[in-house]
Amino acid sequence: MSDTPSKPQQDVPAQGQSLWGGRFSAKPADIMQAINVSIGVDKRLWAQDLAGSRAHCRMLAQQGIIQPADAEAILGGLDVIEGEIRNGSFPFRDVYEDIHMNVEARLSELIGEPSGRLHTARSRNDQVATDFRLWVRDACDRTVAQLKDLQGALLDRAEQHAGDLMPGFTHLQTAQPVTFGHHLMAYVEMFGRDAGRFADARARMNENPLGAAALAGSPFPIDRHMTAQALGFDRPMANSLDAVSDRDFALESLAAASIAAGHLSRLAEEIVVWMTPMFGFATLPDDLTTGSSIMPQKRNPDAAELVRAKTGRINGALIALTTVMKGLPLAYSKDMQEDKSPVFEAFDALDLALTAMTAMVAVIRPNTERMAAAAGAGFSTATDLADWLVRELNLPFRQAHHVTGAAVKRAEALGLGLGELPLTELQALDGRITEGVYEVLTPEASCASRQSFGGTAPEQVRARIADWRSRL
Amino acid sequence: MSDTPSKPQQDVPAQGQSLWGGRFSAKPADIMQAINVSIGVDKRLWAQDLAGSRAHCRMLAQQGIIQPADAEAILGGLDVIEGEIRNGSFPFRDVYEDIHMNVEARLSELIGEPSGRLHTARSRNDQVATDFRLWVRDACDRTVAQLKDLQGALLDRAEQHAGDLMPGFTHLQTAQPVTFGHHLMAYVEMFGRDAGRFADARARMNENPLGAAALAGSPFPIDRHMTAQALGFDRPMANSLDAVSDRDFALESLAAASIAAGHLSRLAEEIVVWMTPMFGFATLPDDLTTGSSIMPQKRNPDAAELVRAKTGRINGALIALTTVMKGLPLAYSKDMQEDKSPVFEAFDALDLALTAMTAMVAVIRPNTERMAAAAGAGFSTATDLADWLVRELNLPFRQAHHVTGAAVKRAEALGLGLGELPLTELQALDGRITEGVYEVLTPEASCASRQSFGGTAPEQVRARIADWRSRL
Amino acid sequence: MSDTPSKPQQDVPAQGQSLWGGRFSAKPADIMQAINVSIGVDKRLWAQDLAGSRAHCRMLAQQGIIQPADAEAILGGLDVIEGEIRNGSFPFRDVYEDIHMNVEARLSELIGEPSGRLHTARSRNDQVATDFRLWVRDACDRTVAQLKDLQGALLDRAEQHAGDLMPGFTHLQTAQPVTFGHHLMAYVEMFGRDAGRFADARARMNENPLGAAALAGSPFPIDRHMTAQALGFDRPMANSLDAVSDRDFALESLAAASIAAGHLSRLAEEIVVWMTPMFGFATLPDDLTTGSSIMPQKRNPDAAELVRAKTGRINGALIALTTVMKGLPLAYSKDMQEDKSPVFEAFDALDLALTAMTAMVAVIRPNTERMAAAAGAGFSTATDLADWLVRELNLPFRQAHHVTGAAVKRAEALGLGLGELPLTELQALDGRITEGVYEVLTPEASCASRQSFGGTAPEQVRARIADWRSRL
Amino acid sequence: MSDTPSKPQQDVPAQGQSLWGGRFSAKPADIMQAINVSIGVDKRLWAQDLAGSRAHCRMLAQQGIIQPADAEAILGGLDVIEGEIRNGSFPFRDVYEDIHMNVEARLSELIGEPSGRLHTARSRNDQVATDFRLWVRDACDRTVAQLKDLQGALLDRAEQHAGDLMPGFTHLQTAQPVTFGHHLMAYVEMFGRDAGRFADARARMNENPLGAAALAGSPFPIDRHMTAQALGFDRPMANSLDAVSDRDFALESLAAASIAAGHLSRLAEEIVVWMTPMFGFATLPDDLTTGSSIMPQKRNPDAAELVRAKTGRINGALIALTTVMKGLPLAYSKDMQEDKSPVFEAFDALDLALTAMTAMVAVIRPNTERMAAAAGAGFSTATDLADWLVRELNLPFRQAHHVTGAAVKRAEALGLGLGELPLTELQALDGRITEGVYEVLTPEASCASRQSFGGTAPEQVRARIADWRSRL
Repeated sequence: MSDTPSKPQQDVPAQGQSLWGGRFSAKPADIMQAINVSIGVDKRLWAQDLAGSRAHCRMLAQQGIIQPADAEAILGGLDVIEGEIRNGSFPFRDVYEDIHMNVEARLSELIGEPSGRLHTARSRNDQVATDFRLWVRDACDRTVAQLKDLQGALLDRAEQHAGDLMPGFTHLQTAQPVTFGHHLMAYVEMFGRDAGRFADARARMNENPLGAAALAGSPFPIDRHMTAQALGFDRPMANSLDAVSDRDFALESLAAASIAAGHLSRLAEEIVVWMTPMFGFATLPDDLTTGSSIMPQKRNPDAAELVRAKTGRINGALIALTTVMKGLPLAYSKDMQEDKSPVFEAFDALDLALTAMTAMVAVIRPNTERMAAAAGAGFSTATDLADWLVRELNLPFRQAHHVTGAAVKRAEALGLGLGELPLTELQALDGRITEGVYEVLTPEASCASRQSFGGTAPEQVRARIADWRSRL
Repeated sequence: MSDTPSKPQQDVPAQGQSLWGGRFSAKPADIMQAINVSIGVDKRLWAQDLAGSRAHCRMLAQQGIIQPADAEAILGGLDVIEGEIRNGSFPFRDVYEDIHMNVEARLSELIGEPSGRLHTARSRNDQVATDFRLWVRDACDRTVAQLKDLQGALLDRAEQHAGDLMPGFTHLQTAQPVTFGHHLMAYVEMFGRDAGRFADARARMNENPLGAAALAGSPFPIDRHMTAQALGFDRPMANSLDAVSDRDFALESLAAASIAAGHLSRLAEEIVVWMTPMFGFATLPDDLTTGSSIMPQKRNPDAAELVRAKTGRINGALIALTTVMKGLPLAYSKDMQEDKSPVFEAFDALDLALTAMTAMVAVIRPNTERMAAAAGAGFSTATDLADWLVRELNLPFRQAHHVTGAAVKRAEALGLGLGELPLTELQALDGRITEGVYEVLTPEASCASRQSFGGTAPEQVRARIADWRSRL
Repeated sequence: MSDTPSKPQQDVPAQGQSLWGGRFSAKPADIMQAINVSIGVDKRLWAQDLAGSRAHCRMLAQQGIIQPADAEAILGGLDVIEGEIRNGSFPFRDVYEDIHMNVEARLSELIGEPSGRLHTARSRNDQVATDFRLWVRDACDRTVAQLKDLQGALLDRAEQHAGDLMPGFTHLQTAQPVTFGHHLMAYVEMFGRDAGRFADARARMNENPLGAAALAGSPFPIDRHMTAQALGFDRPMANSLDAVSDRDFALESLAAASIAAGHLSRLAEEIVVWMTPMFGFATLPDDLTTGSSIMPQKRNPDAAELVRAKTGRINGALIALTTVMKGLPLAYSKDMQEDKSPVFEAFDALDLALTAMTAMVAVIRPNTERMAAAAGAGFSTATDLADWLVRELNLPFRQAHHVTGAAVKRAEALGLGLGELPLTELQALDGRITEGVYEVLTPEASCASRQSFGGTAPEQVRARIADWRSRL
Repeated sequence: MSDTPSKPQQDVPAQGQSLWGGRFSAKPADIMQAINVSIGVDKRLWAQDLAGSRAHCRMLAQQGIIQPADAEAILGGLDVIEGEIRNGSFPFRDVYEDIHMNVEARLSELIGEPSGRLHTARSRNDQVATDFRLWVRDACDRTVAQLKDLQGALLDRAEQHAGDLMPGFTHLQTAQPVTFGHHLMAYVEMFGRDAGRFADARARMNENPLGAAALAGSPFPIDRHMTAQALGFDRPMANSLDAVSDRDFALESLAAASIAAGHLSRLAEEIVVWMTPMFGFATLPDDLTTGSSIMPQKRNPDAAELVRAKTGRINGALIALTTVMKGLPLAYSKDMQEDKSPVFEAFDALDLALTAMTAMVAVIRPNTERMAAAAGAGFSTATDLADWLVRELNLPFRQAHHVTGAAVKRAEALGLGLGELPLTELQALDGRITEGVYEVLTPEASCASRQSFGGTAPEQVRARIADWRSRL
């Protein structure tokens, strides 16, 4: 890679030339190279490629397929290569197309003839399947860790605000009071399921493709269980054609990413909404917003908006790979080289989104007074009145709703809140209503009463927090 | 602009009014009803709705929230309703919008006042979440069963053809011989993972939303564990906001469906390719193809093509619901009413595709002679020659490839297969080559030699079949 | 179709049976029929199918390919069929699979032998391509008309509110004052481009596939220009393979629908946001909202939410057909039978969404006081101050921004609006500031000053309204 | 869980820090920067950004908004910047986030105070909208040129093979003979419509957003018509909110790209199929295939497969941006920063795919003998026999089909082609059949007879080629 911007020069409008500049005058071989080369993308697999080669090499030696001295030379050469990559001196070359050939070519330069024995009983088909599977597995592990960090941040804030009121919305209309802690705990549940999806995907994909060779398996006495163990796989894949031709593990992880991104987009939307001055429910500190040089009070929730937008990229990646794989006959087709970009991009986007969301959750400042005030507005305890009528007066639910509707209408006419309506007004609707009814007509009482498992009563919220603490 | 059919002609008059006609002259209420009504779609949830209502009713009675007599009346009414639906006499009415209101309205007609008590401590929000979750759970179970049926059909055919040769393709170019049984077993692995995905989704979704009420939980002393058990759920959902607002269970099952559809599309593509006269690898009996009245020998693989096409519908359903859910604030928004159509359509499409594929697999007639002949063409055992040179002469892999390339070139020049090339020709390339080399140059020998775990050697294939038999 | 709910019975959870009930015991022919039959979907093409047949029949007669008497009989029979369909007596039969065969079979019953001559020089391939193209063309025309209705409604409301202030938001943060009329006019522009897309798609697709026959054209002396004219097509399609095998016209119209749905989703989101009590910017009358029996003041913006959700269905349809068509070799494959469902569903959804949006726009009641108050909050005229400094004092833009930031900070500290800040305070920042600055510090002045073409000054808004009036 | 590479090893150290590592210990500002910075992506807009600034600067000077001397200084500075970018010395800096701020910061370093006047009457919102629109417009123009190149290549080859026979397939089953030239011309039609879509999108988007400023227009006396003309736009956009908030021009061009990619995927699929040895219809020269070192005769159609796969990336890009834009309230939200990556990636992919396809079309070598032989197999002239019976004996079409079916069945039984069937055999089916029938039973005659407009008769094919030649 160079540090000069070669790409921008392609786009000079006045010239109207092809992106690739005079391609048609180029030799077909240049076109072929341009579309075929993947090293710019797949060099991210270098660590997995080295791990796979080491495991394969040791197995070949143990099985007597190559000599111990050759194995030593190969392993030494791979160490040198790792050092070169880590310190930035490794010569990535387009002419070798992909990470596998780049490593092999360099190994040959470093150790000569023994390098030619590493590829025994192996093919690029099972090699790339192994590398990519290892990468996706690692990405799933990282994502699970990030999801748990986010859940941790949510739990901390939920604990802090387990009893702070806010309006529970349906249709963005005030429905019933809930607590801010309860609201945050809803996302703990969602991200918990997300982590479960990545974990399930990881478990399902954790099988070893190495040894499938080109597609039919190998006539050498290889030990696929040994390489499986060395690479942390649970077992070898049971069908060599399947091993080199399927990418469902990538699709499953993209689907998990898409669902998680959807959850993130919902919380991000809420942060944007909470931060609009019309709501004024929350603020983020300056370093997580962008401001305006001329309107210093303005706090743009850019990070939340970008998290919300990442959903697009991740959904796009899912559709990209789904489209690529549709209708491909077995076993390997070159189409499958297009599997890596969407996966890399989706996990990069998800990584950024999870990190940014965790940071926002950790420091978001709810305006608890404003939230509480809104929680009590809009006759949000009407349901509580109805429930009281059912519970205390044994009215059928539908009839209780009718009485409540009349009470709300009367309160609205008098410009009062439900809890401010005189008892005589209520008794005019049903003579059996008593003073006790007022105990359920505050938002605090409404919340406190919802003691059903998973309800918004602060004790319930704290109990669920404790459950999660014990699990994370 | 044209004299072609104008709008009112578009739809069948018998269906009632046109979707398009006269809407603007309609009252707003009509427009609202047209966009709001969902009974046409969600009546498929009737069984789940009744199951949920029964469980809720029994719980209310047990907890003393309603009287035993009322519970009896309600349960009796629900039985009547089930009978009416089963025998087709139930009056589904648009005016009641959805399945829940239709059932409730009918219950009121049937049993009067006690019907008004069923909705105590419940809301349409948790009710629909419960119904839909039950439906998706059932759909996952059905799909797992169908996948196992398909695996069974594949196993049967794989066993029958465990030793029958066919070309293993990469890029649709002949690469190495495999057996037809081995090829089919690749799909057994894929569909096995698909079943795993549905099972995981099922396990993750198997939590009870009922009792979340509108969004905040209930002040009534409900027992959510009891309804969970009655409905076969593992436990109640732990957060009432999450319970009514998330649809990740539907997305996860759609993602699983999309991946499975992708697998089906690949096998379908292969069937189409195998059936083209240019391949002539397989035929399907008349009742699974369409023919031509004037070309009786023509067998159009319509069923395979339709299976392949169903991928589109299922991917579309996944994107539809992903799009709907993006950026929705908690808790319930009406957008979520659009969750059911994509799910119903996707599972209907997957059901059809799995059924049709199972039927095709069961009866497809491979042309084993033609497959075997193709398996041996194109120097498909070149890799075996290279491997022999490595194994027997200890050539480095890369050098062995070089020698093999020369041998193939020579054979091509002489118009011979690799196995027909005289020993002297081979020895001209490397004097150490012996008569023994011919043992690996037939496709049969090539297959037989690939004894690595998961390889195409018939014993390996049979061992894997046995593994699967013991698991299914 | 029957009026008894046959489908719901498939979904009884206790039974766990296949959707299709005992399918595996069914004969393969039943499976084939189940996956193959399309009459349930494609009967919506009946009017187009009749139009195509009439045009074909008249052309055959004119060219002497069939006898006048036969043509008369056929046309008479088609009229009878149209009557039957219109009055609901036409026997749609699954056994005839699709609309074409149903019509042909019925024609044979009605007129006998001459019916067998209608299909001369025609194939189902060009017939369905013609029918479907006519349908999509009509749908585009209808959509353009609906978009113009919506634009008309927006223009009416924009005129009414051309001078009413509201906050212009970026990031949902108050940025600069605009007028409500200006805001609505932004959507007039968007829907105008949407109409342009449908019109362009319509023009591009308006070519006649009829006469392509199966795929190779016809040996009969047909006149494709004549049928083109009769069906309102601009010309015959120029390649018979292309005519029967491409569906880009459907994809293009789905893409236009997807973009239009995106625009609708934005306006729908805004309506939802405007209607939340935290904004209180607008209300919809009762018949376009749903309420709550117990909270009569609650107005759920269900229609807006459903409009927003329809985006999902339409995007899903686009991906569905894109997926179906990917990688299909020429000419016709049965996969293409899956083209109609996504198109029908997408246009149904768009039709509903446009109708509902037009109704909402026509009657939405902005709370102009509340909007105006919000327009002046948050130092929304800070940019106007900066612009004044540049214009009147010739400060460089960046320096003007700096001074403005200081002024805002000072006003915030004093708890004042920008327009309330004493001149001395402003002059402390730059001594050249004069009394005249206050003329730009009210939201009214801010709006009035933005006289650039397309700006929010009420005269500009009214000029743009006039432009559109002259074009619609 | 495994001993495989841990996180820090994932990325090449030379690239600097890992995307993944240590982020949580970073300050929030770092996270904000990581998610917010876009210069790595949007520097591709540099030429458009300079063009926009020049036009804006000249307009400001002409309108007297800035002084001529300042304008000179600014234009001079912009020239220096262009030089720096072109020779690779321009310092792109993350700290300035995007291309606009990078250019502005550099301009300030180069010319000092006047640089601060360039942003008068402009905002980043209208600036980025202008830059991006210019880029997409250029990309559309390039794509149209590439599509025409591809059409040109197809026309050349179609002309060469206007009379060479191949089987016309439906369902990959032999249906009727066509010519290879006719087949290629089907794609000329498709790519012609694709070019039309890009041209329409270009025309619709060719309006000037510049001058919309932040969202409300500008109080300066700017001349938006002048900047429009300078930038090649047809007119200024008519609504400032619309100008900064919509991205439908990008979506429309992505949709056009998706449809074109679908067409490319179909031709790519055909090339893959034609090149499989089972078909043997065509070969590509070595430099457009990849081979195998040990199977020199193997030609993998990698370029075709990669073209086919690019469909995935492009569809993914379309869904990505559609998802981003769904439900965003006006005017600008930061989500829209995610608009450029999908567009750049999609056009890069399409550029590669078009270039590779054009190269393949130019040099693909059809095996015309093999194609011709296949064209005559499978009773491909059965339809011609039926048409003869209708034409010559006046049989109704359906009856003619019946007779033909019997003839084919008889020929099959005798192991003969249709044209080899003795006249007596035919006359046994219908005594009126004459010797003349044999004139339609060869594939050559079949093709030659299909003289309907757009049919496969070589004269028709050549006429259509001539039409296109006159248009391109």
